[in-house]
Amino acid sequence: MTTEQDHGRTTATHGSRIDAYVDRYAARATGMVASEVRALFAVASRPEVVSLAGGMPYVTALPLDAVGELVAELVADRGPVALQYGSGQGDPQLREQICEVMRLEGIEAGPDDVVVTVGSQQALDLITRIFIDPGDVILAEGPSYVGALGTFAAYQAKVVHVDMDDEGLIPEALAEAIEACARAGQRVKFLYTIPNFQNPAGVTLSAERRARVLEICRRARVLVVEDNPYGLLGFDGEPMRALRAEDPDGVVYLGSFSKTLAPGFRVGWALAPHAIRDKLILAMESAVLSHSTFAQLAVGRYLETQPWREQIKAFRELYRERRDAMLDALPKFLPEGCTWTRPAGGFFVWVTLPEGLNSKAILPRAVAARVAFVPGTGFYADGQGTRQMRLSYCYPEPDRIREGVRRLGSVIEQELEVRDTFGAGAGRHRPGVDTPGPDLA
Amino acid sequence: MTTEQDHGRTTATHGSRIDAYVDRYAARATGMVASEVRALFAVASRPEVVSLAGGMPYVTALPLDAVGELVAELVADRGPVALQYGSGQGDPQLREQICEVMRLEGIEAGPDDVVVTVGSQQALDLITRIFIDPGDVILAEGPSYVGALGTFAAYQAKVVHVDMDDEGLIPEALAEAIEACARAGQRVKFLYTIPNFQNPAGVTLSAERRARVLEICRRARVLVVEDNPYGLLGFDGEPMRALRAEDPDGVVYLGSFSKTLAPGFRVGWALAPHAIRDKLILAMESAVLSHSTFAQLAVGRYLETQPWREQIKAFRELYRERRDAMLDALPKFLPEGCTWTRPAGGFFVWVTLPEGLNSKAILPRAVAARVAFVPGTGFYADGQGTRQMRLSYCYPEPDRIREGVRRLGSVIEQELEVRDTFGAGAGRHRPGVDTPGPDLA
Repeated sequence: MTTEQDHGRTTATHGSRIDAYVDRYAARATGMVASEVRALFAVASRPEVVSLAGGMPYVTALPLDAVGELVAELVADRGPVALQYGSGQGDPQLREQICEVMRLEGIEAGPDDVVVTVGSQQALDLITRIFIDPGDVILAEGPSYVGALGTFAAYQAKVVHVDMDDEGLIPEALAEAIEACARAGQRVKFLYTIPNFQNPAGVTLSAERRARVLEICRRARVLVVEDNPYGLLGFDGEPMRALRAEDPDGVVYLGSFSKTLAPGFRVGWALAPHAIRDKLILAMESAVLSHSTFAQLAVGRYLETQPWREQIKAFRELYRERRDAMLDALPKFLPEGCTWTRPAGGFFVWVTLPEGLNSKAILPRAVAARVAFVPGTGFYADGQGTRQMRLSYCYPEPDRIREGVRRLGSVIEQELEVRDTFGAGAGRHRPGVDTPGPDLA
Repeated sequence: MTTEQDHGRTTATHGSRIDAYVDRYAARATGMVASEVRALFAVASRPEVVSLAGGMPYVTALPLDAVGELVAELVADRGPVALQYGSGQGDPQLREQICEVMRLEGIEAGPDDVVVTVGSQQALDLITRIFIDPGDVILAEGPSYVGALGTFAAYQAKVVHVDMDDEGLIPEALAEAIEACARAGQRVKFLYTIPNFQNPAGVTLSAERRARVLEICRRARVLVVEDNPYGLLGFDGEPMRALRAEDPDGVVYLGSFSKTLAPGFRVGWALAPHAIRDKLILAMESAVLSHSTFAQLAVGRYLETQPWREQIKAFRELYRERRDAMLDALPKFLPEGCTWTRPAGGFFVWVTLPEGLNSKAILPRAVAARVAFVPGTGFYADGQGTRQMRLSYCYPEPDRIREGVRRLGSVIEQELEVRDTFGAGAGRHRPGVDTPGPDLA
């Protein structure tokens, strides 16, 4: 990888490409390979391309004047604290505010049980660090968040996917997967699940299934890691009760301000049972000492001084309009045989192509036609997903979304013609997890 | 560990202390134990205690008005960028500015080879992640930075200490350690060294030895990890040339703005040969996706708009005065038989107590006498350091430093009397590395 990911910059990579250290890396580093699709996404970040690939929130909708004022006041009022090291667990006041945010999803918790992390990505990294020995099993929805799969691969976990349908994770499939692992003598360390507006599938775990998933995991003594970046971004009614709300001892809950405020502060958190929290703090200190005090206090001051609930409502309305634009455009422009999910919140739609098409093979042609998406294989650890793609509607404006889907539709049409003329040529699948760029979060 | 580290707060820890997950942690998590001395440092953070323990820079010396203005301008001018996800490698402009900073130490490098990290602690974590399999050897000065030892332990590395004297790492001892590892069939992955104003020993690797250390490592194909947070904080003359300046292919250089600007942004970096840099970026993305764009751009704007070289000079003068206060007080107040190093920069003095005394056993009495230090054993992976302690002069004002050393002197006097009356009772040593709190950085 060179610097393609620095959008708008291209710098020649100088020097030799021979890796003098190739015989000295750790075993875990062999799984660290740059995604094949990275270079394409560099092209996809050009303004003429409609990117339905990225998971970037629309931060332009924030009250930037107010944010500018509050960070200036933060330095004026509390500069020597904001610019100093902080505790590994995170700012105490922010942790109290985080508890207030989680209360919207039925969670009763104290600030002692919260650990502030560098985005919820770091919480994922730390929880994997303290639980996973090479070869241990993590259960995850199929498909699942590409960034989680990358982290799990970095710790040499074996990911076993559990099927979903329109109501989310299928409890019977979960129970079967746990039993199969037990029969095979495999240690299941935790279930990783995104219950709300799942990334990438866009589906939500129904209330009835939540109880059953928790019961199955409790009986099998399988910890649940509930990753919930989108829970407050539902388009209909009140937020659902978190899994953590029903089972404080069996669930580690991961939250984030990246989608409800802004990713630029990189403030996320883990809420964990006491013993796990203790280990998380030690792992946090070993990893980064502590998160940026400045970033934490800026988020805290935002929550303290700004109408954050109303801002989340504004985000919901904005993303709902974009979701509608996409769901409106898909049947118009995508050829027969394509199917997709209907998210009730969050950022993503999961599209399944007609048989014989391969989304990764289509991507270069789509980018040439000035539209980008993320191919489905990145969201599986086992090579599934060749016929799927993730479309995001969070960042482009509605007209651009429609235009993007139109362009995508005609690319797929052409692929179908090629398929019908020459037969299905399923593209090669390279094993291993595609590490995501940050903008694919 | 409870919330003692939240200075000034005490919250009852509720719920059961039994760890239901004790049989499920990863092997690496068994080494993650809270330091015995943590609770003491909570007490030590009370205002009546002179803390010679922490490594917190004196950020109050910064031009806070200017910092407040520049963060407000950052949001006004570049809000949608500063609040968004950034690239895993870090902001391109900041990476160019980092190259300019490194040029002060003779380093010629391009921004392509820099990876911005969450403090240099994260750079340490990532470099360990990509190189260390359990049991691999890391060579490190004895004593060495407690935070590095904690990270190395978290990856189950075996740390082999190499002796130092007043000119830093002893090349002959390094060569012998490498040969001994080779004879024992152990894989040495890298030498971890802090060449300037070492933490905790306060000594500096001489120019003549730098060439020899590099030559020894080059011949043995041992990568050098040069950790250099204090290099620009020398009290005499120009900064020394970095090891990296002499050997771009054999050295990974770690830098930080925590001591030259402020730790509150948590902006550090690694400069690495191309192949290693590629792996570092992937590891970075897997760990946290990307660092806070806001924090990075704030540091970048500070470097762009403020007289940062003059600020570093002001820090140097400030710390030099404090170093002088400490070196002046030590012979006055410490009893005969105590010895110490004489740092020419940085934050720390390393004190050796008379035989029969144990610094960890003394700490509670010192804290009762309202002075704190860090016991020496934390800076070794193998139980050495019982007679040593680290004293820092970076944070308290000169009069407080003198008063702290006076208090420490009388505590040591009393200990000597006890020793002479009852005989030496060397305290127990608990194996394992004390994980540092962030304020012990």
